[in-house]
Amino acid sequence: MTEGTEMPLKNDVFLRALLRQPTARTPVWMMRQAGRYLPEYRRVRERAGSFMALCRTPELACEVTLQPLERFALDAAILFSDILTIPDAMGLELEFVEGEGPRFGRPLRTAAAVRRLPIPDPERDLAYVPAAVRLIKRRLEGKVPLIGFAGSPWTLATYMVEGGGSREFRRIKGLLFEQPQVLHELLGKLADAVALYLNAQIAAGVDAVMIFDTWGGVLARHHYREFSLAYAGRVLAQLQCRREGRTIPTIFFTKGGGQWLEAMMDAGYDALGLDWTTDLGEARRRVGHRVALQGNLDPMTLYGPIEVIRAEVRRVLAEFGRGNGHVFNLGHGILPDVDPEHAGAMIAAVHEFSPAFHAISPEFSQESAL
Amino acid sequence: MTEGTEMPLKNDVFLRALLRQPTARTPVWMMRQAGRYLPEYRRVRERAGSFMALCRTPELACEVTLQPLERFALDAAILFSDILTIPDAMGLELEFVEGEGPRFGRPLRTAAAVRRLPIPDPERDLAYVPAAVRLIKRRLEGKVPLIGFAGSPWTLATYMVEGGGSREFRRIKGLLFEQPQVLHELLGKLADAVALYLNAQIAAGVDAVMIFDTWGGVLARHHYREFSLAYAGRVLAQLQCRREGRTIPTIFFTKGGGQWLEAMMDAGYDALGLDWTTDLGEARRRVGHRVALQGNLDPMTLYGPIEVIRAEVRRVLAEFGRGNGHVFNLGHGILPDVDPEHAGAMIAAVHEFSPAFHAISPEFSQESAL
Repeated sequence: MTEGTEMPLKNDVFLRALLRQPTARTPVWMMRQAGRYLPEYRRVRERAGSFMALCRTPELACEVTLQPLERFALDAAILFSDILTIPDAMGLELEFVEGEGPRFGRPLRTAAAVRRLPIPDPERDLAYVPAAVRLIKRRLEGKVPLIGFAGSPWTLATYMVEGGGSREFRRIKGLLFEQPQVLHELLGKLADAVALYLNAQIAAGVDAVMIFDTWGGVLARHHYREFSLAYAGRVLAQLQCRREGRTIPTIFFTKGGGQWLEAMMDAGYDALGLDWTTDLGEARRRVGHRVALQGNLDPMTLYGPIEVIRAEVRRVLAEFGRGNGHVFNLGHGILPDVDPEHAGAMIAAVHEFSPAFHAISPEFSQESAL
Repeated sequence: MTEGTEMPLKNDVFLRALLRQPTARTPVWMMRQAGRYLPEYRRVRERAGSFMALCRTPELACEVTLQPLERFALDAAILFSDILTIPDAMGLELEFVEGEGPRFGRPLRTAAAVRRLPIPDPERDLAYVPAAVRLIKRRLEGKVPLIGFAGSPWTLATYMVEGGGSREFRRIKGLLFEQPQVLHELLGKLADAVALYLNAQIAAGVDAVMIFDTWGGVLARHHYREFSLAYAGRVLAQLQCRREGRTIPTIFFTKGGGQWLEAMMDAGYDALGLDWTTDLGEARRRVGHRVALQGNLDPMTLYGPIEVIRAEVRRVLAEFGRGNGHVFNLGHGILPDVDPEHAGAMIAAVHEFSPAFHAISPEFSQESAL
């Protein structure tokens, strides 16, 4: 059933960095690396007819997952899917409107609807996801690890209650202030659904999992702890991260969460994702040796000329500094109109510049000798 | 010319809090307190015909500035105007499109246009602003201080280059990465224009000034320092903050800037504004006694029931804790569909709960005696 997982990985630098083990260089991948900025992706997307058809067809999801690996020396693949597959499987009828983003045909608007909400069985209600994972793992042939992912309970709740994307989060904040117990009931269900979903991805063969808390950053800190972080912790507590002698590292990413790293650490994930507003060096001093850090080049940097991209890559690496526990990434998803050559220049620069930050320097040897 | 300023203030608790002097309670005002949530504002706005006509007519700007003071026990008035009056006076032709927000008829799109950009003379090109200040000061009769304000150079540049509001900041970030020297030229001009503008407001009688850096938070930290904070410093260096024996306190507010308080302090403003994502107590520990803090209730709290509003006010006050140097405010502007009674409940709660945080407690006396 999970034949893919039996093949040893040829490149595990990404997994080792997440566990803060020594590596000879800094691994690199990009959020949304399988996506619209690639012409070959746009061709498959057109063939599929719709974004959701692409997600729901394992053969096509597999094809686009592997596309960026053909072009670039990436250290991880990430399952092509969407964080809103869970609410869709709960019956909210996800659709993508061109130029507008996701929208639910049946948004969540009453306490009774929250109570009735079913918790999907991933192998039955979301079977296309583990099927895609198994196929991708087979095709990857152990080239690089495969990342599985899900949205955080808070972020999923936000989309479900707002009915789609939002600028102001009026409805979900209204719920938070007016009927917090209904929101807690919703978040509890979502945490259990996310855990089941990620465990199905792990059973199908993913090598690491990441939780995207895209909208945690719109909360006041005490609300972030109560309504986002607590449920990210409830997900983690249920994950089967030890499997056949392997450890499945976990990553938690709250966009706009740079102020709350100390609280985030307590949730127990192996690594924290950082957006581009957080100074990596300062973040590292704050977290010490407790977690790895993933990030955090401003995605807009890729609009700039190649020399600027290279200088900014070097700056991010230098900000983190010497040593292990850093996964290079953008601070958010790659933008759809970026020139793929600019993405390639970024990846090449990480390969070129990062070994110097991992080499054992004379000072370092001296320190060790003390 | 500035007859209003000669009248002594009957309530200076806001100014004293900004200068971290002792007060018997915490002063309170609201960003956008003269605005759409008030039915009496909407009537005047309709009479004016357009938002800009309202800004440009001192009699009407004065009327709406004073409206919230009739309803609520606020500790400050803030000039009714818009941060985009400066780009408008530079020739960009500001308009407000219903439901869409601000837009420029002639956005800034070339280096040559940046070079040609004139620096407005406030008393000639923006005469309606100092005229409104003089009128408001007269009508206030020293009841509470009047706050003058401007947008930060970075935030103004953002609107000017994007042509209006933006979600992605693609054009201004493109300029930052591709032609940083053009952006620096623009920001330098804007800093000088903002300083002239605020000095004209000070000469006309405002008692404090605030800089709104609405979009500083979309920058990476090193870019925030280089493109936002440096120019906020260049504004401050030119401000005439000592006038006829009085000190005009200054406030700097970067939305999303909670990670950068230490850097912001170095800019030299008397007080820093905080949005609702920052823990006030932690912020206070970080800034020590160097600056006052203003904020930071989540504006969405006002959608909640009165008991929740009261509990959240108490929480914000307790987070800052005992002592001086706190100005209570929302973490961003009051939302247009808030019930004015809920705003009133918030203000009343600050008056009710805050004296306890200023009273000299037995432990405090003991400490003093040591």
